[in-house]
Amino acid sequence: MIYINISEIIRKKRDQEELSTDEIEFFISEYSCGNIPDYQAASLLMAIFLNGMSQREISDLTMAMARSGQIVDLSDIPGIKVDKHSTGGIGDKVTLVLMPILASLGVPIAKMSGRGLGYTQGTIDKLESIPGFRTNISTYEFIRNVKDIGISIMCQQENIAAADKKLYALRDVTATVESIPLIASSVMSKKIAAGADKILLEVTCGSGAFMDTEDRARVLGETMVNIGKQVGKETIAVITNMNQPLGRFCGNSLEVVEAINVLKGKGEEDIVKVCCVLGAYMLKLAGKGDNLSNNLKLIQKNIDNRKGLEKFKEFIERQGRR
Amino acid sequence: MIYINISEIIRKKRDQEELSTDEIEFFISEYSCGNIPDYQAASLLMAIFLNGMSQREISDLTMAMARSGQIVDLSDIPGIKVDKHSTGGIGDKVTLVLMPILASLGVPIAKMSGRGLGYTQGTIDKLESIPGFRTNISTYEFIRNVKDIGISIMCQQENIAAADKKLYALRDVTATVESIPLIASSVMSKKIAAGADKILLEVTCGSGAFMDTEDRARVLGETMVNIGKQVGKETIAVITNMNQPLGRFCGNSLEVVEAINVLKGKGEEDIVKVCCVLGAYMLKLAGKGDNLSNNLKLIQKNIDNRKGLEKFKEFIERQGRR
Repeated sequence: MIYINISEIIRKKRDQEELSTDEIEFFISEYSCGNIPDYQAASLLMAIFLNGMSQREISDLTMAMARSGQIVDLSDIPGIKVDKHSTGGIGDKVTLVLMPILASLGVPIAKMSGRGLGYTQGTIDKLESIPGFRTNISTYEFIRNVKDIGISIMCQQENIAAADKKLYALRDVTATVESIPLIASSVMSKKIAAGADKILLEVTCGSGAFMDTEDRARVLGETMVNIGKQVGKETIAVITNMNQPLGRFCGNSLEVVEAINVLKGKGEEDIVKVCCVLGAYMLKLAGKGDNLSNNLKLIQKNIDNRKGLEKFKEFIERQGRR
Repeated sequence: MIYINISEIIRKKRDQEELSTDEIEFFISEYSCGNIPDYQAASLLMAIFLNGMSQREISDLTMAMARSGQIVDLSDIPGIKVDKHSTGGIGDKVTLVLMPILASLGVPIAKMSGRGLGYTQGTIDKLESIPGFRTNISTYEFIRNVKDIGISIMCQQENIAAADKKLYALRDVTATVESIPLIASSVMSKKIAAGADKILLEVTCGSGAFMDTEDRARVLGETMVNIGKQVGKETIAVITNMNQPLGRFCGNSLEVVEAINVLKGKGEEDIVKVCCVLGAYMLKLAGKGDNLSNNLKLIQKNIDNRKGLEKFKEFIERQGRR
């Protein structure tokens, strides 16, 4: 057995050497359980921020973080489970619209969603503006709902990618947030731990997003797609414009109202377009057809015939007040 | 008043911006008193390690650390107080030899000295191998000894450059030791806080030293000389070869014995030469003559006539068992 120590790991990254799979696994598992103190982790994070990581290191970091907590087993649910993640933006209610439409097209939707970070609210925060709606459900109920009606959304559990959570809190106070290797591994570790078979990423780009330029958005997207490739979870990234808020409304309950309007066929052009394009790719990932323009039409059809709206009602009723 | 916060300071250094005097002062004083946690300091240290510091930033850091604890006032002692520092090496007993010789030539020697770091022992450790010798004396006795017999050496007090002590402990476990801005400011802050008017630096270089190459030793020396210039404490740096131990003996008591042999005129050539050259520069700094070859002869003379040895005896007796 090779003796690994954290000082040597920091020194290697500081001196632009590549960390081994074992070294990354050691760091994440020892940091998770408190054997490595925050100050050593902080020093390593800054070295990663400034010296970067190879694609192999990023994939290893992703898997180490995914394994640092519970990994949800969705194998009881038939079909390909496609998860969606957005890097966030003002007024982004795409998930609220897209999930019921996809469910109405036979794609199983078993989505764990996080709360908001910073000024953008998460899907969970938005859903909770519906009086009595329950997001804090058990994994048992979550899986049963998907089996019964094809859709469930639950609040991401505490111990999903536990190391990521601890590291993110540290990054937040050590000026090491805006690092592509760290953002990419953080996003992907949570999706993998949440049990996704395949992943669709919406990489928002512009003045209202984490990634301010298209170049940086592209690098982030490619990095995450490559992680997916290396760990065997097919991933597609779509870059969307976040130079202005999506749709007309911002704020949790207003966004739920607007999502319902989109499902009624009364949505603004920008949000309808984003939903149709992302939905088309998700249908492709779910094995429902490789022809994207056909897929686009399927999404639009289930807006027009209100099948998405019906599924949304069923979903809200199912997770409503008991 | 401008609002300063540590996250913004880390971000600036991360993005290669220069920190202001206020920002450096803020960091050191808030870190000293525990308002900035270790993990934020660690992140900043790594950013400094990788992105460097301007000479102005280094001088500001030096003065901020010097002011973070007690600053010894040696103004009661007449004459120019010259301090000496060595970056250390195996068998380096130069201070033991040089201080009494200089005192015998009328240069006031009021030296605070540290204990060893790592595998090299400090002057204090070596002196304490003399049974009953007291290094833990009060500043009052320290100054009185210098006034009475022209020489005293005391153990560096706890609160000399307090921030440097705390930061050094953090650097030691975050792979941020070998940074020239951090080494230079650490050394100079302690010398300035110890009350030196002028400073002679022995920058050891080679396989047995911190600086392995002459280039790095030169940069470190120049950096410290420039700090001295900017803060008004004339500083000379001499690079010495540390590819093999100095003299014949290593180990605290053996080195004291060897130092006495040098003072008796029975020293090895290498150590006598280093003592004469460093001594010549210290005489120059002390205002005892600008002609270095004359100064060299003065040092050699007080070895030959055993005046250095007599002063050493007087010094040891004065700080001996009470």
